[in-house]
Amino acid sequence: MGKVYLVGAGPGDPELISLKAYRLIQEADVVLVDNLVFGVKKLIPEGKKVIDIGKTAKEHKLSQDGINMLMVDLSEQYDKVVRLKGGDPYIFGRGGEEAVFLREHGVDFDVVPGITSAVAAPAYFSIPLTYRGISSAVTVITGHEMEEKEEIDSINWEAIANLTGTLVILMGVGNLAKNVDNLLKHGLRAETPVAVIEKGFTEDARIVVGTLGNIVEVAAKEKVKPPAVIVVGDVVNVREKLILHPEK
Amino acid sequence: MGKVYLVGAGPGDPELISLKAYRLIQEADVVLVDNLVFGVKKLIPEGKKVIDIGKTAKEHKLSQDGINMLMVDLSEQYDKVVRLKGGDPYIFGRGGEEAVFLREHGVDFDVVPGITSAVAAPAYFSIPLTYRGISSAVTVITGHEMEEKEEIDSINWEAIANLTGTLVILMGVGNLAKNVDNLLKHGLRAETPVAVIEKGFTEDARIVVGTLGNIVEVAAKEKVKPPAVIVVGDVVNVREKLILHPEK
Repeated sequence: MGKVYLVGAGPGDPELISLKAYRLIQEADVVLVDNLVFGVKKLIPEGKKVIDIGKTAKEHKLSQDGINMLMVDLSEQYDKVVRLKGGDPYIFGRGGEEAVFLREHGVDFDVVPGITSAVAAPAYFSIPLTYRGISSAVTVITGHEMEEKEEIDSINWEAIANLTGTLVILMGVGNLAKNVDNLLKHGLRAETPVAVIEKGFTEDARIVVGTLGNIVEVAAKEKVKPPAVIVVGDVVNVREKLILHPEK
Repeated sequence: MGKVYLVGAGPGDPELISLKAYRLIQEADVVLVDNLVFGVKKLIPEGKKVIDIGKTAKEHKLSQDGINMLMVDLSEQYDKVVRLKGGDPYIFGRGGEEAVFLREHGVDFDVVPGITSAVAAPAYFSIPLTYRGISSAVTVITGHEMEEKEEIDSINWEAIANLTGTLVILMGVGNLAKNVDNLLKHGLRAETPVAVIEKGFTEDARIVVGTLGNIVEVAAKEKVKPPAVIVVGDVVNVREKLILHPEK
């Protein structure tokens, strides 16, 4: 029986994966990738057996259960199975569920943390999630555009609106209007700064900045598409102090 | 004028720094380290100029302003100045403040994200911060044992206690009793699972598990010391499904 490695591939830039992730990719007998690992794919040596889960899932209607079973099957055929996951496996990556499934099926596994895009995508555009006197709490949730409907309602928006820290919403572009509405309804000011970062740490990375009051309109006008990271809070304004303004 | 790189050194395991951080360490003319970068120090090539900020600060009573000025001074003497910071520079690492200082002093800089110990230390002990049906929100705060007193009171404990997600407290061991008291006072159940992870991802890493009701006593008995990461929430119980029990 082989071992399965659930490996954080980080935010997309191949230089932002860990030395351990890089080593495991080189040593792997088979590497599973999905749509969220972006440029990291280029680190996989030529000739290595690669399974594109994103593609496989689409063609064969592979569910999460199917992916789980595929990993179990592969562990019976290969010594080292590396499953690359965008960001960190344990931050909304279903890594916990996959690990429990592997353990329940008697498969040896290891989890390798990665740099989550919740932190790295804002950093790429000069937004620090914490800042003395501005934000001393960071909350990460998902906008759940890829989840069942009941999950989005399990979020306590009132508590989130009252946190007085930074809010990061992953996978929130599809439901942007609903998410913004929830925050406004529970008392966040319409002037609260919002940034939407599309494809952070890829060559096509882009930021759109606005406020809770206008971001739905701005994002629609700019045709912002998933995957994107949304940052809500006054730290968005720190960006102005950090970026160079060539026009000035 | 040289360039200053604020580089996330990750949670302590030298294999968990990014390829980019590793490259910058090799290329640097001078590397600034502090007490939180642990085993990463061994990646610095022999003969490289290293300044230990932790030690320097202690001997010369170097304040944050002093560290900031030191970076500016070094940028005038060297081409590449690498400042290694434990975890991620923008998650309670004062990276934002340092970056603003550098920008205001006309110093070119770059920020390289790292794996935050808020995520990696729990992962090391098989605690996923999110888990379907158990937690769909993660909040990270600091217990502020190294901060001024007013900051700890700026946290909205009521909102945090009502989040129904996972709470991670960094630097919270010194104020453990006060932090626990704040959570209980605002309605979190005494049975809420709590894990305290000491020195996650170092050779001396250790976990202590309890509940909000007994963790102060348990941590005292086990003589838990900083640095530690505290996890509060039902995800702590997922650990039981993931770890192997050799006795069974």
